[in-house]
Amino acid sequence: MKGNVLVGQSGGPTAVINSSLAGVFKTAKERGYQKVYGMRFGIQGFLDEQYVDLSDYIRNELELELLKRTPSAFLGTCRYKLPEIHEDKEVFDKVFALLDKLDIEVFIYIGGNDSMDTIRKLSDYALLTGAKQRFVGCPKTIDNDLAITDHTPGFGSAAKYIAASTKEVIRDALGFSYKKKNVNIIEIMGRNAGWLVGATALARQEDCDGPDLIYLPEVSFDIEAFVERVTGLLEKKDVIVAAVSEGIRTADGAYVCELADGAHSKDAFGHIQMTGTASYLAGLVHERLGIKTRAVELSTLQRAAAHLASRVDVDEAFAVGGATVKAADEGSSGVMVVIDRVSDDPYQSAIGVYDVHRIANGEKLVPRSWINAAGDYVTDEFVSYVKPLIQGHYNPMMVAGLPRHLVMNQKNYSDYQI
Amino acid sequence: MKGNVLVGQSGGPTAVINSSLAGVFKTAKERGYQKVYGMRFGIQGFLDEQYVDLSDYIRNELELELLKRTPSAFLGTCRYKLPEIHEDKEVFDKVFALLDKLDIEVFIYIGGNDSMDTIRKLSDYALLTGAKQRFVGCPKTIDNDLAITDHTPGFGSAAKYIAASTKEVIRDALGFSYKKKNVNIIEIMGRNAGWLVGATALARQEDCDGPDLIYLPEVSFDIEAFVERVTGLLEKKDVIVAAVSEGIRTADGAYVCELADGAHSKDAFGHIQMTGTASYLAGLVHERLGIKTRAVELSTLQRAAAHLASRVDVDEAFAVGGATVKAADEGSSGVMVVIDRVSDDPYQSAIGVYDVHRIANGEKLVPRSWINAAGDYVTDEFVSYVKPLIQGHYNPMMVAGLPRHLVMNQKNYSDYQI
Repeated sequence: MKGNVLVGQSGGPTAVINSSLAGVFKTAKERGYQKVYGMRFGIQGFLDEQYVDLSDYIRNELELELLKRTPSAFLGTCRYKLPEIHEDKEVFDKVFALLDKLDIEVFIYIGGNDSMDTIRKLSDYALLTGAKQRFVGCPKTIDNDLAITDHTPGFGSAAKYIAASTKEVIRDALGFSYKKKNVNIIEIMGRNAGWLVGATALARQEDCDGPDLIYLPEVSFDIEAFVERVTGLLEKKDVIVAAVSEGIRTADGAYVCELADGAHSKDAFGHIQMTGTASYLAGLVHERLGIKTRAVELSTLQRAAAHLASRVDVDEAFAVGGATVKAADEGSSGVMVVIDRVSDDPYQSAIGVYDVHRIANGEKLVPRSWINAAGDYVTDEFVSYVKPLIQGHYNPMMVAGLPRHLVMNQKNYSDYQI
Repeated sequence: MKGNVLVGQSGGPTAVINSSLAGVFKTAKERGYQKVYGMRFGIQGFLDEQYVDLSDYIRNELELELLKRTPSAFLGTCRYKLPEIHEDKEVFDKVFALLDKLDIEVFIYIGGNDSMDTIRKLSDYALLTGAKQRFVGCPKTIDNDLAITDHTPGFGSAAKYIAASTKEVIRDALGFSYKKKNVNIIEIMGRNAGWLVGATALARQEDCDGPDLIYLPEVSFDIEAFVERVTGLLEKKDVIVAAVSEGIRTADGAYVCELADGAHSKDAFGHIQMTGTASYLAGLVHERLGIKTRAVELSTLQRAAAHLASRVDVDEAFAVGGATVKAADEGSSGVMVVIDRVSDDPYQSAIGVYDVHRIANGEKLVPRSWINAAGDYVTDEFVSYVKPLIQGHYNPMMVAGLPRHLVMNQKNYSDYQI
């Protein structure tokens, strides 16, 4: 008889991280595991013995479907890095004692680079000590910066939301353009990798020109060249839209958002704001050109907008979650499940398994060749890469006009006044 | 034989302002008018003889449906106030000369308070001069601050987007709450009226506690009381969410967003930013309590998110648009079409016609009795009022993964590389 499965979520949430959780749960049950435990708040909560039995929450097919449509980490998440084994063996002993206590055979961790580091260390420790558990990583991050896998679950949905919102911001800006020009700057997440800001290029369709300029963190940002480009474009167009990554830096390595703080406009309390790039540039353009400007930040909505998730992404996240359990069940450990792209058009993907040692702590940036020579737009290759990942839609399950989510502290009809 | 209809859009756009335009077009055609002209950029563009024949763009039923799902003003919009008649008669003579030239019998203006002022002046002028044209206003504004009408088309969709986004922001914030508390401040549009910020209360459902605090511009904002409330709540909860209107003011009448600028944190160039309330308060809470904070601004997306429009709102906007032409066709002028609420549950509404003189330049605020005594939340009456207006969904028409819009400068398949 098989034992139990333990699954956790870690790092920044996505719109589909729970679809992977649903996939883990379903495959574990189908393959005959007894219980599927969920760590509360990742390995950090688990070390405090915070865990739940997922069967208490996923009681039927409807709740499983609802979980697939619920954004952010159902189990809660953490940013917690395990020490190296030689640094602090005690932490590892504690984890493995808990695994033994709960009769865990399979340990699944859904996350990004840091989470794969956790899988690596735990599987190494199991090898060293002869522990029976198997450890498999499930990729997840809106940033799409994980190595080896073609892309990460969560990226497609964030890209879809970003592209759709970009179209809406552009349409809004065009309405007001009579006899007064305006410049709009949209700030997108992605500190080091420009996959998300590049996705604004998908807004370019038959009904929309898309953004005029796109600045990725992979290329150093030249403030004077930017102002010059905007000035030139304003001679031809009334409405300019620039998409900028929160992580763009000048040639000397300073974040543009820090420039804002350092130079003039630090917040009321002098704190370093890790947002504010768009706001700084909007102020600068207004100052220099006397044009009406607007800064738009998509903020946490870009990783939480399950109501506009990509069907390809939800389905892949679910499949990848199931594949982690399958891999462990068939004997793998110290691996991460990855997505291989078989073809762009028609889009086809396949699921593979890679050694987590090859993945951990690497960061996949946008290739320079997928950014134009001027460093202010992405190429057609970039667009062809992202486009298949934003396709299709899951209708949210609407209750009283709003998308319903599966949550742990669900209230009941009887004790909730509607 | 009937002559022609002229329609314009004015003021801030909404997600459903084009559904009203579609309604105007359809009813005008059904009632036998020859042409339906659209003013480009409202009365401002029309004075420069900027107009189009809408039949060139709405060529079939599919395009009519697409128009209903397209956010922002299809025709372009303006903020332009006509002078009083005694101040500058020439402007009026110019408008009426153009109306005669185009054989206009019916003039429809879709907009808010300022637009109804335009209808009032033009219909007064027609009375004074014996001009034959009839002038009818079609209500529109996300702010819901128009008098007489129960609510304005555009409000329900903005409220739905705001409530859904609030749920997503809350879910995201809860994921990160293990052993570290966080305070989130969401800034919502509405300078003087708190209808939109109050709509965040709809996020309170079986699966979500909703925001903890809601601050409307109708009640003066006490910064010390706010910090005290947050401090008290943090003793009971790990994640606090406050929704604030961009227009909240302290007892001495200063906008909180100006406080930020005036006191410490003006932008890099010293400009008054008419946003920044959430950012200021997030900085303040962090400074005082040492808690992680985040400011989220929904920005123009709250008026442009047609992808999450309310079906009730889209349908009412369409019906109200049609009703303007019907009213004019049956002889009314100097009126605005309004929505009367027949019942809350089941929700039923009816369309009426009111004298625009009773409407123009009035501003409907949230009644004090719909805000709690402490001034930091809305009452159940408020929720019962808004809830019917966010119900139902129109599936966007998705092309290549993104909502398709009807636009004037649509490119064709043949000259657009997909």
